[in-house]
Amino acid sequence: MEFRYLSPHIPRAPLSGPLGVYGRAVEVERKLLVPDPPDLDGIDADEIEQGYLAIGADGEVRLRRKGEKLMLTAKRGSGISRDEAEIELDRESFERLWPLTEGRRLRKRRHVIPHGNLTIELDVYEGELEGLVVAEVEFASEDEARAFEPPGWIGEEVTGDERYLNETLATKGRPS
Amino acid sequence: MEFRYLSPHIPRAPLSGPLGVYGRAVEVERKLLVPDPPDLDGIDADEIEQGYLAIGADGEVRLRRKGEKLMLTAKRGSGISRDEAEIELDRESFERLWPLTEGRRLRKRRHVIPHGNLTIELDVYEGELEGLVVAEVEFASEDEARAFEPPGWIGEEVTGDERYLNETLATKGRPS
Repeated sequence: MEFRYLSPHIPRAPLSGPLGVYGRAVEVERKLLVPDPPDLDGIDADEIEQGYLAIGADGEVRLRRKGEKLMLTAKRGSGISRDEAEIELDRESFERLWPLTEGRRLRKRRHVIPHGNLTIELDVYEGELEGLVVAEVEFASEDEARAFEPPGWIGEEVTGDERYLNETLATKGRPS
Repeated sequence: MEFRYLSPHIPRAPLSGPLGVYGRAVEVERKLLVPDPPDLDGIDADEIEQGYLAIGADGEVRLRRKGEKLMLTAKRGSGISRDEAEIELDRESFERLWPLTEGRRLRKRRHVIPHGNLTIELDVYEGELEGLVVAEVEFASEDEARAFEPPGWIGEEVTGDERYLNETLATKGRPS
């Protein structure tokens, strides 16, 4: 299988956010499908549940529970250029906002898999999205991203493919 | 001037939110323009600054500073049927999110004017919206709303007119 650094879905190199509010963090990230996941027994995993309070043409606000941690994340912009800011919420605030995400939620288990110097985050979706498994890898530079030698169970690259954005999956379900 | 309870802008009676998350609060609210405001010297006023993190077809998230109070409000739905939830933020969280509202902000001074048993909130917009003054009155029932005898400085009714929603004013400016 050939891995192209430049996905067919994005016109430019995937230099993606988050851009820190008080500074700009530049990351290179790739997203890849995993049609046939490896054995995940014994691999660290977090249960993630997230829902969207609002999804606009230029901005979205997400609630996420990751284990015991409750977060609200705002993103601005789209595609590979996004501003992002995140705050932690107490339980009462989270529970007050959560009902407004109804019908725009997803659940997944995130497994953190070491791979050489890199870390692969393997998201195993649950509920209505069961069967979908997506790997994300962050790189310190474009060179590092280019040099990435994926494990054998990695499949099609979907970096920049809007159908695989979490907000799309949460509202429209799995791409057919 | 004739006051119609049913604004031309909405098909049904303006039974508007907020709907509490753990219960439903039904309010009747009217919004009216104030072309020639009364003397506001000595009237209680709060400085309000607000900005939108996301404005979607079905949901929006707003930050608001009202005096020292910092709030995040999520709304779902549109028009006269809205779910709403609000939480208070600490300064650090507010300041982390606020930059993402850039270009979608407004400022106004809210004056609270007693009027018989009722309270009129008079919003005097500032900045790019200077010159716009809007009155909002909440009623306990439709009967009370019908019986409302507005002061002489009240002008055209804009209840349900989307051009006068704050999210529209913050993004598109004053209606021409």
